[in-house]
Amino acid sequence: MKQSIGAKTLAYPTPAWLVGTYDMFGNANAMTAAWAGICCSDPPCISVSLRKATYSYANIMEKEAFTISIPSEDYVKETDYFGIASGRDEDKFEKMGLTPIKSEVVYAPFVEEFPVILECKLVQSFELGLHTQFVGEIMDVKADESVLDEKGNPDIRKIRPIIYSPERSYYGLGDFLGKAFSIGMEADKK
Amino acid sequence: MKQSIGAKTLAYPTPAWLVGTYDMFGNANAMTAAWAGICCSDPPCISVSLRKATYSYANIMEKEAFTISIPSEDYVKETDYFGIASGRDEDKFEKMGLTPIKSEVVYAPFVEEFPVILECKLVQSFELGLHTQFVGEIMDVKADESVLDEKGNPDIRKIRPIIYSPERSYYGLGDFLGKAFSIGMEADKK
Repeated sequence: MKQSIGAKTLAYPTPAWLVGTYDMFGNANAMTAAWAGICCSDPPCISVSLRKATYSYANIMEKEAFTISIPSEDYVKETDYFGIASGRDEDKFEKMGLTPIKSEVVYAPFVEEFPVILECKLVQSFELGLHTQFVGEIMDVKADESVLDEKGNPDIRKIRPIIYSPERSYYGLGDFLGKAFSIGMEADKK
Repeated sequence: MKQSIGAKTLAYPTPAWLVGTYDMFGNANAMTAAWAGICCSDPPCISVSLRKATYSYANIMEKEAFTISIPSEDYVKETDYFGIASGRDEDKFEKMGLTPIKSEVVYAPFVEEFPVILECKLVQSFELGLHTQFVGEIMDVKADESVLDEKGNPDIRKIRPIIYSPERSYYGLGDFLGKAFSIGMEADKK
């Protein structure tokens, strides 16, 4: 029996990503975001929704660029901190001992210590309500060699991304369940 | 040392959700989508990107409604199948032995066997390229009693959602890593 929970942003899983930007002084900033996802395959685009009140909002509007840095679970405390503090008040990179690297592709910094980063050019922004959705075209993806498989592709088991749950908790990646566009055919044989 | 992987839709984690719609004959359909995420808190909105070529695309355009049914990992084969086959050719619900239930809130069906469902009214659609992004306002969330905690809130550990990885694999949920908006303060004490 299904019970009504109300009109809430309850969805599982959501990501825990850091959105990297430069502010008006050229200082590197980043904030944690979970209201985000891939939104187009061609051109490759990712969307992230931010509140106007965030420091990052104005940075993206002005620089028309951002990065997505994907943390491994080793950095769950730092990831959470980047969602609590504001770049208006302090240098979060310095506070957390993380290294902002200037992207050579777009005008935005990424987190050196995180295994995968996406460098994005702002292509659209949509006012949706409390949140504004930014759509960025993914100009390049960069990954640590240590998270690549033998074919040179990122391996999620080596990345160990953080899964955010809207009841305000973080989780790690669990067991392999199967190959997509493949195991469904077994169900077809039922 | 970071290596360039190219401009690709590589992001971790992404979800594995079923988008439920009615077609022009009033038949229930659903398709698997991973290019999706929460995009606004107030009003609560979720976005899902579909290719124009999908059967679901026209259904959403016409009915201006859809559901998101979130599978548990017990249904990974069925979830994959809903991403392989097309509602143009067959009744995927019947084939997979799953039950489409008509939402009482919006004109769209959801998957009875899945633990959490979101009932959405289409509020915007954006042409981004190969994919069109649909933004739905979440009118209600419904969950099985069996996945609620003692306070009546959904518990992701009971839901056991499927995590999709863009290298075309499915994973389960892993270990609890910490409370959000909380463990970050430990890092601050460093």
